[in-house]
Amino acid sequence: MKLFFAPLAALLLVTGLATGKGKVQPAEVMSPNRNLQVRLQVSDGVATYTVHRNEQLIVAPSRLGFVLKDQPALHGDFAIADVKKSSFDETWIQPWGEVKTIRNHYNALTVTLREKGGLKRTVRVEFRVYDDGLGFRYDIPRQEKLTDFVILDELTEFALAQDLDAWWIPANHTDIDSECLFQKNKISELREAVHTPLTMEGPRLAISIHEAALIDYASMTLARQSNHVLKADLVAWADGDRVKTRAPMTTPWRTLQIAEKPGDLVTSYLILNLNEPNKLGDVSWIKPGKYNGMWWGMHMKKYTWEGGPNHGATTANMKTLIDFAARHKLSAVLAEGWNEGWEGDWTVEGKFNFTKPYPDYDIDAISAYAKARNIGLIAHHETGGNVRNYEDQLEDAFKFCAQHDIHRLKTGYVNKRPAGERHQGQFMVRHYHKVMETAARYKVMIDVHEPVKDTGLRRTYPNMMTREGARGTEYEAWSDGNPPSHPTILPFTRCLGGPLDYTPGIFDIRFKTTGAFRVHTTLAKQLALYVVIYSPMQMAADLPENYEGNPALKFIEDVPADWEETRVPQAVIGEYVTTVRKDRNSNDWYIGSITNEQARTLDVPLSFLTPGKKYEAEIYQDGANADWDTNPLPLDIVRQAVDTGTVLKLRLAAGGGAAVRLHEMP
Amino acid sequence: MKLFFAPLAALLLVTGLATGKGKVQPAEVMSPNRNLQVRLQVSDGVATYTVHRNEQLIVAPSRLGFVLKDQPALHGDFAIADVKKSSFDETWIQPWGEVKTIRNHYNALTVTLREKGGLKRTVRVEFRVYDDGLGFRYDIPRQEKLTDFVILDELTEFALAQDLDAWWIPANHTDIDSECLFQKNKISELREAVHTPLTMEGPRLAISIHEAALIDYASMTLARQSNHVLKADLVAWADGDRVKTRAPMTTPWRTLQIAEKPGDLVTSYLILNLNEPNKLGDVSWIKPGKYNGMWWGMHMKKYTWEGGPNHGATTANMKTLIDFAARHKLSAVLAEGWNEGWEGDWTVEGKFNFTKPYPDYDIDAISAYAKARNIGLIAHHETGGNVRNYEDQLEDAFKFCAQHDIHRLKTGYVNKRPAGERHQGQFMVRHYHKVMETAARYKVMIDVHEPVKDTGLRRTYPNMMTREGARGTEYEAWSDGNPPSHPTILPFTRCLGGPLDYTPGIFDIRFKTTGAFRVHTTLAKQLALYVVIYSPMQMAADLPENYEGNPALKFIEDVPADWEETRVPQAVIGEYVTTVRKDRNSNDWYIGSITNEQARTLDVPLSFLTPGKKYEAEIYQDGANADWDTNPLPLDIVRQAVDTGTVLKLRLAAGGGAAVRLHEMP
Repeated sequence: MKLFFAPLAALLLVTGLATGKGKVQPAEVMSPNRNLQVRLQVSDGVATYTVHRNEQLIVAPSRLGFVLKDQPALHGDFAIADVKKSSFDETWIQPWGEVKTIRNHYNALTVTLREKGGLKRTVRVEFRVYDDGLGFRYDIPRQEKLTDFVILDELTEFALAQDLDAWWIPANHTDIDSECLFQKNKISELREAVHTPLTMEGPRLAISIHEAALIDYASMTLARQSNHVLKADLVAWADGDRVKTRAPMTTPWRTLQIAEKPGDLVTSYLILNLNEPNKLGDVSWIKPGKYNGMWWGMHMKKYTWEGGPNHGATTANMKTLIDFAARHKLSAVLAEGWNEGWEGDWTVEGKFNFTKPYPDYDIDAISAYAKARNIGLIAHHETGGNVRNYEDQLEDAFKFCAQHDIHRLKTGYVNKRPAGERHQGQFMVRHYHKVMETAARYKVMIDVHEPVKDTGLRRTYPNMMTREGARGTEYEAWSDGNPPSHPTILPFTRCLGGPLDYTPGIFDIRFKTTGAFRVHTTLAKQLALYVVIYSPMQMAADLPENYEGNPALKFIEDVPADWEETRVPQAVIGEYVTTVRKDRNSNDWYIGSITNEQARTLDVPLSFLTPGKKYEAEIYQDGANADWDTNPLPLDIVRQAVDTGTVLKLRLAAGGGAAVRLHEMP
Repeated sequence: MKLFFAPLAALLLVTGLATGKGKVQPAEVMSPNRNLQVRLQVSDGVATYTVHRNEQLIVAPSRLGFVLKDQPALHGDFAIADVKKSSFDETWIQPWGEVKTIRNHYNALTVTLREKGGLKRTVRVEFRVYDDGLGFRYDIPRQEKLTDFVILDELTEFALAQDLDAWWIPANHTDIDSECLFQKNKISELREAVHTPLTMEGPRLAISIHEAALIDYASMTLARQSNHVLKADLVAWADGDRVKTRAPMTTPWRTLQIAEKPGDLVTSYLILNLNEPNKLGDVSWIKPGKYNGMWWGMHMKKYTWEGGPNHGATTANMKTLIDFAARHKLSAVLAEGWNEGWEGDWTVEGKFNFTKPYPDYDIDAISAYAKARNIGLIAHHETGGNVRNYEDQLEDAFKFCAQHDIHRLKTGYVNKRPAGERHQGQFMVRHYHKVMETAARYKVMIDVHEPVKDTGLRRTYPNMMTREGARGTEYEAWSDGNPPSHPTILPFTRCLGGPLDYTPGIFDIRFKTTGAFRVHTTLAKQLALYVVIYSPMQMAADLPENYEGNPALKFIEDVPADWEETRVPQAVIGEYVTTVRKDRNSNDWYIGSITNEQARTLDVPLSFLTPGKKYEAEIYQDGANADWDTNPLPLDIVRQAVDTGTVLKLRLAAGGGAAVRLHEMP
């Protein structure tokens, strides 16, 4: 990977402000295009920030500060001690991703707050204001009266100026708590803490609150304080503390992406920009791609994770899957249930062994077979939530991967621990970080299931490929499943955090093997998801026998997992979305359009194509009378010559979709 | 207990109807007061039912039928073979409860549907129409072509005629899935299956959909089909089947309580009426009452469930709690963590032993000590979700209770099982039923935590006292807790099913021992909950040291757990509620009023008092400047002479409440 930096235009202004008792002292900064304005003010010792867009109030004065354990709260006695401003402009290249080149252009404002009396403690608040939003964080410098400390509450508010519509999932009510369906309510109607990204909509306004660079801190959820005022609500340790830390320290960035329309949130890379650059050096070993496995067979009760007569991860089955991957342009095969410990209760301490394959899984033979066909293996570390057991084996487990030429890994944390730590608390944030860093040392790319939320760490650790942290396709296998609207919401909510391993590609939509369940989709929509929901490890989730012979498989073969460019020309959250992406390794473009329960026709202008070039459009669309509920399988595959002047008319069935490959003609 | 039956007025009409192809054949029945009308019609082989109230359409034509495994669906080829009508009127007495005397007065309609072709299978649909709503169930008689069968889907629809506001919690996304906060949305905005009772509101209309007498069947949740049409969505077995059954069988009753205002739903006893009468015979051993324990101390980290230096269930601690109970008019003491198996991971198979006390829990000494003071013991069977382990020990466990004179039991099912059965599925319905019946044989009253939902089985099994199945006070100990609005919603939603062990009475509202958490209440509101939320086993949940010396404790001493009468004169769901109840064992009345985040003053006319009698009102209300958030403890206790003409003015602080005892003067 090459990184290049644009000429750095850093303008440093230092402005010392005298402190005045009870007086408002604003410190201000504008976005580079001067559309956004952020102001920090201190009044009667209380520091608040305000956000305007083109003179319109977006965030009303919102408190900053902390409640600390065994010492006075840190929020009521501030004066501004110092104000610094600077600018920054770089362009960097993602080693892989939904876009290749990202501009990181912001104006910064750093305000030093010092207590007027008492302990005279110091907190800096650092703002970075972009054209597409802002981030801010607390920076607590080394000081005498604040060394080791415990945060009981972070008081950061987000006092939205309007009562917007919020797309939310609840936080905190269970451990694996991000696997919910999104619901839309006014902010004022929220009764419980919600997860971020929290995306909100108003007239010509889309805002998403999230965080960037969550490292050694608790995840931030949001709780309503009053009317439409939200407040940070950090996930606690089992003992009720929120964050155990010591100065000097910085908090994660609190981010507000602000756009005219939801589609522009998807192409805002502010969260990545607020993370540190690549720390891993040479990352040429990191390769996005598609994969398959026997995982869906477990959900369909064809295979078991544990050993026995229907064991899924056998040498023979792996060879079949490797052959399939090689034949159909996939990069890797995932083996679930390859190691001992799956019998009985998964939560027993010390149960899973990460270096001991089942006897019918001949790992040396499988590795050699895969290598000969240029297919990678994806190991699987299901921890059952037993973090201690996993950490005890961590070095050995990764050494074992390296010994067997395994550079991809899926981890899992099914089950909660009684009286235990929460998935989104600081304890688990530390654990996930440790696994990610260990994986990097052993040159292993990771795909985390039941993860902590994504806050853009893949910029710093490009081996952090993808994760779950959403209600994925698996819910279709054994529950009411995901209504057709669900994947039209994900790109604007969960996916603003980062890549999602949604595991699309189910062709056997009404399962042969189980009774009451099915996927809430048409076949064409399953293909469209490969474009709409980004993952650098993208699964072809169904079983070989459900793919072979189906002409729709060609789209999965063709679609990349690594992109040069991304656009979202059309979207109404919860109703439909069209995503357009350009392949990073060719001049081909791809389109994915999906809809909720309503059938609709979408006009997609191909103005993004290079003028003067000819393309062949391969359109995979819902066939006559297709309908997710009653008739999901009809699929028309149409070929058509197009150019930059063409407007494609895509007909989407109820719960349907369309997937298009635009192949540049020689 | 005495049961008496009013003269039974049963009018039997048998009307045979000729079947006509493609023709609508209505069968109708009215409520006794003729306000409600229910009609079943068959059109082109499809059976639907419709509900009107005073000519207004409440439920539009809604489909009836089933999808079955390995045989044709049972819903598209019906004709009406027979129609029967009858009336029923009885008055019965609850051995304990929120009301003493209940009238069970309905008109019934039983329609026999028979398939015109094919297998010629028969299903009866039985409606009971009350003045306050209706119930209907399927009755599948013994027949040749339908013997053992599996229900893959119950097609029952509830096509609400208007897009009402629905108070919902999600179903199915985790095992212990009823412990959520309620949210309000239009029916048309629901994206996922929801639990029942599902309470909905429109102009001068309150409807709650639930079920009665859930026995050997799957729980019914509701999923939106389209617009504002809901459909039964049965909770599945792990294998995807919904119900494994054989003819003859009846389904649980599907119930619609229909009222002018939400308060009238609370005093509708339709669900109890649809259950079978007491099957246990003499139930004089069943005694409602209040209890205490060391449970809150575990949540406050003062005690541990498992043995060790801070073990909670010790002989000494039990004696302290028994002394407290005897001094303060409680009936029983709950011992949690008294038995071996709590160490480490609770989910290990075979871990909990229900007959082996910890060495520091001298059960014989404790039983003798309690008996001498006329205090009962409440045993605790925490299963950790290991149903098999519990069933293996069940007889021995209850024998052990009987041997130690224990007639009260709390059960628990913390944790979900990997790849296991769901809390609300038929597997667990059977388990809970087995435990309830076993408990009855050993004369044990039960309080089930992490239960299946309550469908009124306490009428048939009066030892089925109370249960959790809601987000209770425990969430205040270690999470964001329950916002002040939460208990203003519960009486109109969860509590329509039956008693709730909410565990009120926390006086240490901002915990001494933990940092970030607290109860979202004023002190006066904690008292009011004893009237607002009914439980025949009502906990005084806080620790003795937090009660002793506080004059508020007198209200907990006085308030009964068994009532003659209940009224709800004032309520707006999510905002406030006033509940009035009359003691069953005296002429005293009690009032509980609670509010959400808004302070308010409520005028409560005491017109329910007996004219000519004088009463002393003891009013426990929020003190000056009380506020749940900033100042929860101020409490004024005011005594005032009142009579049937008095209008009490109750001032409720933000997040506050008022509790009143109206004591008849001699």
